[in-house]
Amino acid sequence: MMKEEEHMSFMRRAIALAIEGVESGAGGPFGAVVVKNGEIVGEGYNRVTSSCDPTAHAEIVAMREACQKMNTFQLEGCILYTSCEPCPMCFGAIYWARPDKVYYAATKEDAAEALFDDAFIYKELSLPSSNRRIPFLPLLNQEGKAPFESWMDKEDREAY
Amino acid sequence: MMKEEEHMSFMRRAIALAIEGVESGAGGPFGAVVVKNGEIVGEGYNRVTSSCDPTAHAEIVAMREACQKMNTFQLEGCILYTSCEPCPMCFGAIYWARPDKVYYAATKEDAAEALFDDAFIYKELSLPSSNRRIPFLPLLNQEGKAPFESWMDKEDREAY
Repeated sequence: MMKEEEHMSFMRRAIALAIEGVESGAGGPFGAVVVKNGEIVGEGYNRVTSSCDPTAHAEIVAMREACQKMNTFQLEGCILYTSCEPCPMCFGAIYWARPDKVYYAATKEDAAEALFDDAFIYKELSLPSSNRRIPFLPLLNQEGKAPFESWMDKEDREAY
Repeated sequence: MMKEEEHMSFMRRAIALAIEGVESGAGGPFGAVVVKNGEIVGEGYNRVTSSCDPTAHAEIVAMREACQKMNTFQLEGCILYTSCEPCPMCFGAIYWARPDKVYYAATKEDAAEALFDDAFIYKELSLPSSNRRIPFLPLLNQEGKAPFESWMDKEDREAY
């Protein structure tokens, strides 16, 4: 078990990365660190604007790095430290990567004050598709089932 | 305005990519295409297991490719065609990338039948942090506000 002091030290690294990202012009004020067995296995800061990648949020950058380094697509036994409570995209990414737990410093409300309004996306998620700002429209549902048939027929499929 | 026939043709490409991804062993049965002005500017299939990247869902692969190609982090004027209704991670990514609209073929329910239970993540999103399968714990909130101060002080900050 890690001591509270160690958790704080990793969180301070995530916060320092967030500030470094702002100062270097990489992107928004967010940093994250992935730790396994008391060691950093992935880290990063937001790079959305500098890398032309809307998905390059700090948590995703750090988790992708950790996965590359450990040659896995699962973060069992890992802890994610993020300088701010995750947005819905990063929340989903966390659930797919499955670290053991997540520590966050600033809250969604702090982010909203700096005009990062993740709350808007959380709200849209709860609306029926027809009422959303970005329309989500069904098309070719029957044909769309074919890939699942290929998947179920594949004997050596690797679930995730 | 595109005709219905054109929308169907792009969706069939997304579905074909999903099947190609399964057959090549790249990952799960999902494909996606980003279209601007009637031309494909990004496309891809799920590569989670083969690329050791839990975020490499088809929609994210296709949107990242489109952004790289067009040297932007925003997909205004674009349409995303995805072989299956997006999971919460991809939903969030779509809201950050901001295409004009999204067409999907298979539904979340079809995905759940093939044991891709995005519904679980949607459900977890609606729970208070303390009741979630992956715990989300607050730590160093006051220190966590510092990156937002750096951000607000930065005169040449680029919002997204």
